[in-house]
Amino acid sequence: MSIHPQSVGFVKPRSIYFDEPLHLLSGKVLPAYELVVETYGTLNADASNAVLVCHALNASHHVAGEYVGQQRSTGWWDNMIGPGKPVDTNRFFVIGVNNLGSCFGSTGPMSLNPQTGKPYGADFPVVTVEDWVHTQARLADKLGIAQFAAVMGGSLGGMQALQWSLSYPQRVRHCVVVASTPKLSAQNIAFNEVARQAIVSDPDFHGGNYYAHGVVPKSGLRVARMLGHITYLSGNDMTEKFGRQLKGEDYTYSFGVDFRWKVTCVIKATNFLNTSMPIPMC
Amino acid sequence: MSIHPQSVGFVKPRSIYFDEPLHLLSGKVLPAYELVVETYGTLNADASNAVLVCHALNASHHVAGEYVGQQRSTGWWDNMIGPGKPVDTNRFFVIGVNNLGSCFGSTGPMSLNPQTGKPYGADFPVVTVEDWVHTQARLADKLGIAQFAAVMGGSLGGMQALQWSLSYPQRVRHCVVVASTPKLSAQNIAFNEVARQAIVSDPDFHGGNYYAHGVVPKSGLRVARMLGHITYLSGNDMTEKFGRQLKGEDYTYSFGVDFRWKVTCVIKATNFLNTSMPIPMC
Repeated sequence: MSIHPQSVGFVKPRSIYFDEPLHLLSGKVLPAYELVVETYGTLNADASNAVLVCHALNASHHVAGEYVGQQRSTGWWDNMIGPGKPVDTNRFFVIGVNNLGSCFGSTGPMSLNPQTGKPYGADFPVVTVEDWVHTQARLADKLGIAQFAAVMGGSLGGMQALQWSLSYPQRVRHCVVVASTPKLSAQNIAFNEVARQAIVSDPDFHGGNYYAHGVVPKSGLRVARMLGHITYLSGNDMTEKFGRQLKGEDYTYSFGVDFRWKVTCVIKATNFLNTSMPIPMC
Repeated sequence: MSIHPQSVGFVKPRSIYFDEPLHLLSGKVLPAYELVVETYGTLNADASNAVLVCHALNASHHVAGEYVGQQRSTGWWDNMIGPGKPVDTNRFFVIGVNNLGSCFGSTGPMSLNPQTGKPYGADFPVVTVEDWVHTQARLADKLGIAQFAAVMGGSLGGMQALQWSLSYPQRVRHCVVVASTPKLSAQNIAFNEVARQAIVSDPDFHGGNYYAHGVVPKSGLRVARMLGHITYLSGNDMTEKFGRQLKGEDYTYSFGVDFRWKVTCVIKATNFLNTSMPIPMC
């Protein structure tokens, strides 16, 4: 595999352990936790060139570069981050951090609950954007970064960038918010509720403790993901992209899909107990 | 139960049998079929005052009036149709017709397939707006109506009214199309596909032959109906109606619903085999 000269190249995530308790907005407390991060570029002497990239709903700390020996392992914002790219790693020290509660390595429902010795599953506390920003500030402390050159992200990642400007305004020089909002509209809330219902009403959901049953609520996740993808495009964008073109010569008069509209969604989530970093949906 | 003076009063549906084969757009043929109808007002001597009301996705022939002994049995467009109402039954003879393939009494998946002696279930042919308009024209023939004063409907009902103006332009004096379209946008198609997937991926769907298993894909229908309801309102309407008000004092930090947004959806569909007219979702 050859690496493009504007790529940050092969990268490796690392895990950072925090042993101080984390008080969450819900009132619950995590006694300790880990955050998985990747970094690209070099932190300068006065630690003034750090850029924090916050991820959206289904992404991770793997923002740029490739993993050795893994095909199609390019980071999710690789076109933005690298030597000579808009976020130039010749100038900036870029940090990708996996959010608490995710399934990509940071402490989350798949982690062992120290009180039971079993995975948290549905007992993992609900976390919020404010909670994430709080953990990211602690991460900055640990890395010796008093102030970020920028905190940036799209969608749910943009919400974190916005929250940084509220929670720690003195610690952010620039805030880059892409396709995001300070609050969801009633329609956003409704779409999310449908997606959530699709998942929780899947018989394989088992109240959120599906790992204990050796199953994953794939059907519900699939429907939720399809719905999500509609909301990521405007109606006009969808018309431009898909129009009303039939897949075949004529309608099939069946339950099948006649029009060209398809979300490719690969769910790889076999054994949550034995895998520290499964790749879930999409 | 007292009846409002502007109500058409107590009404009864009736079933009309068609013994000529119906050639569907899919190429399939129904050897015979029934349509359930209700009528309000009186057909005049030259049969020039008939108004056909076409129904939308989840409605039926029961457009106006009440059923004896049934609470909350008011027809779905009762505010529009009755003596002195916009569609004045003192002047017009109004027909509500249940579409072929529906579960409200006209021939559909619940009907017995003459070839097997069992309900059609998923073997019932797919029907289209054009097919419906074709059956409605035959109904007009049978009732001696050469030309409708108007064909009207909203949503999928409006599509039928539009189709009348294309298939039988000489047989419609007025076409009343409410909140409808001649074709779905890419986004409409995508939303429908998500709703369809929510239903067909429900384990209780059983490839459409759920009646044979004594179950109904309630979870899938529920998710599909929730999604449908979002698409019936604009984003601005939803904000006006629901805003971002919490149901309780604070977030519950749970899988529950925190915001005021709820679709009341009652699914009554017990035994499809023994019930000629169940009331399905909503």
